[in-house]
Amino acid sequence: MPPPPRRATIRDVAREAGVSRGTVSRVLNGERYVSDQAREAIERAMKVVGYVPNTAARNLALRRSRAVGFVVHEPHALFLEDPNIGAILLGANTVLSEADHQMVTIVVDSDRDNERVARYLGGGFVDGAVMVSARQRDPMLQALQAMSLPTALVGRPPAGVEVPWVGIDNRGAARAVTEQLVRSGRERVGIIAVGLDRDSGADRLQGFRDALGPSFDEGLVVERPLYEYAAGRDAMQELLVREPALDGVFATSDAVAAGALEALLAAGRSVPGDVSLVGFDDSTWARRCQPALTTVRQPARELGERAAALVLDLLAGKDVTADPAGTLLPTDVVVRDSS
Amino acid sequence: MPPPPRRATIRDVAREAGVSRGTVSRVLNGERYVSDQAREAIERAMKVVGYVPNTAARNLALRRSRAVGFVVHEPHALFLEDPNIGAILLGANTVLSEADHQMVTIVVDSDRDNERVARYLGGGFVDGAVMVSARQRDPMLQALQAMSLPTALVGRPPAGVEVPWVGIDNRGAARAVTEQLVRSGRERVGIIAVGLDRDSGADRLQGFRDALGPSFDEGLVVERPLYEYAAGRDAMQELLVREPALDGVFATSDAVAAGALEALLAAGRSVPGDVSLVGFDDSTWARRCQPALTTVRQPARELGERAAALVLDLLAGKDVTADPAGTLLPTDVVVRDSS
Repeated sequence: MPPPPRRATIRDVAREAGVSRGTVSRVLNGERYVSDQAREAIERAMKVVGYVPNTAARNLALRRSRAVGFVVHEPHALFLEDPNIGAILLGANTVLSEADHQMVTIVVDSDRDNERVARYLGGGFVDGAVMVSARQRDPMLQALQAMSLPTALVGRPPAGVEVPWVGIDNRGAARAVTEQLVRSGRERVGIIAVGLDRDSGADRLQGFRDALGPSFDEGLVVERPLYEYAAGRDAMQELLVREPALDGVFATSDAVAAGALEALLAAGRSVPGDVSLVGFDDSTWARRCQPALTTVRQPARELGERAAALVLDLLAGKDVTADPAGTLLPTDVVVRDSS
Repeated sequence: MPPPPRRATIRDVAREAGVSRGTVSRVLNGERYVSDQAREAIERAMKVVGYVPNTAARNLALRRSRAVGFVVHEPHALFLEDPNIGAILLGANTVLSEADHQMVTIVVDSDRDNERVARYLGGGFVDGAVMVSARQRDPMLQALQAMSLPTALVGRPPAGVEVPWVGIDNRGAARAVTEQLVRSGRERVGIIAVGLDRDSGADRLQGFRDALGPSFDEGLVVERPLYEYAAGRDAMQELLVREPALDGVFATSDAVAAGALEALLAAGRSVPGDVSLVGFDDSTWARRCQPALTTVRQPARELGERAAALVLDLLAGKDVTADPAGTLLPTDVVVRDSS
């Protein structure tokens, strides 16, 4: 491969300024014993040749890049639709920016990505990482731990992995929103359960069980792998086949609930007349659906802020271990017209 | 600030393996004259102490990071809602991933971000950059040019800036979708024009003028700064005040059109009975609106793929200059129920 377009070097600056390379180095390093005249000539020359000091080289000597990775482990299509990831990302970016750290976002999709991303994260380009959507036995999480990169998770880590984290009480929130259905007198209540390979998905199903108690019916649990509109539509059709007398549904994300709503209306059911429907996330889906969705608001932006702050604490050598190692942020049930 | 948790070094590997640091170096550099026994001990030791070779250091010697920045210059809120940026990002990521380059996404929001991001991009952390949403007199674009970082744009660059780019024919696409309105007999047609400080926004307004010809009415142009649902709703209310007999609207994004639809229905207008409405983007908004929106489909994913390929070409030293320097990808008008 031929070389890329050449970046200006100290040599170029020295030639343009008519001084030695040593003099340029002394100016760059802020040393004394350089005449004002030479200093001005060098500063002028840097602009002319477009010289930018190589921060990576300097930071390398200090073992610091002042960059933090934001690692999103999501199938690509979901990265586009997930209403929380963007807000988590922006929250983390704000906190890191205020601490003058550059956040770089990295999407991990395929196994091939896994290897390359691990090489990158371990290669000195970043000082630490925020990771979202870790799965059980996540190879990226294992890689991060093996290289001792200061890392914080959004969401509870898999069992046995000790890493600081911040998340929400998915189980409690799911119980609270399901209780909305129970309190309004609904008796045949189903769930569209998604992402059971992650803490969030499994906990939401558990919270649903908690709320229903003895009236929980395994037959009214339909599982889907991804939080997608189409998954909600299809799963709702399946639920209606299993139980035509269904009168309540907990769709475990708003996008899934929006799909379920389409299926309910297409099947001639009124919402909330015949069937009450509740979602999760309080995303734009919830507000734009007709009827607007009862749902759970999660503090996505604050999750990102807190996880970034944890990484900065780790980088500052602070002790962030606690018992438990994670922090749960509160959620709210937002009651609208669908229940 | 105390030092961050220490990364394992060659010294740790040497101690664990019971060999000299020079021997470890020789193994890492793939040199001969190392016994199989020592080599195996060293490989075992690397695993034990969690040693990861410092790629940044090695790449620095080669002046290559094998990383490419994906720079999004958007207000944060828009980054969450823009349906195209995610697809452009994923397209670029796929192409860079296949070429074994790590894409790192960087959001530029404030002026403070500008400075830090310029430092990062010029600091040797990335070999090149894809930039989206450049504005007129964009300080980030100027910084990228000053440092001669191989860069490709998504969208046409501001006048006078020579940089390879890939985009869509916003003017032609806007003309085509507006002609839908004219052909169906609409006579009092307004536009919600957004982002006129960017090529896309200004070109869409120009295409709208092209389609209307002499019946273009400056009084039916309402401007807003950002492509937002709320902006569409408010601008639509303003248009109806200006011209109660309005019978056609070009909302220059689907999110804006969705907001406009809410305002039209709230004002007692039927769509498309009283007022025909067309959007732009073919995002989920277009498909979920009732009625579904007539709109323009843009090849967002391919825009990202092509821009990433341009950067790889630049890095490979290929001549990508052409006349014109940019490539326009085709768009389609998608006719649905709103017009």
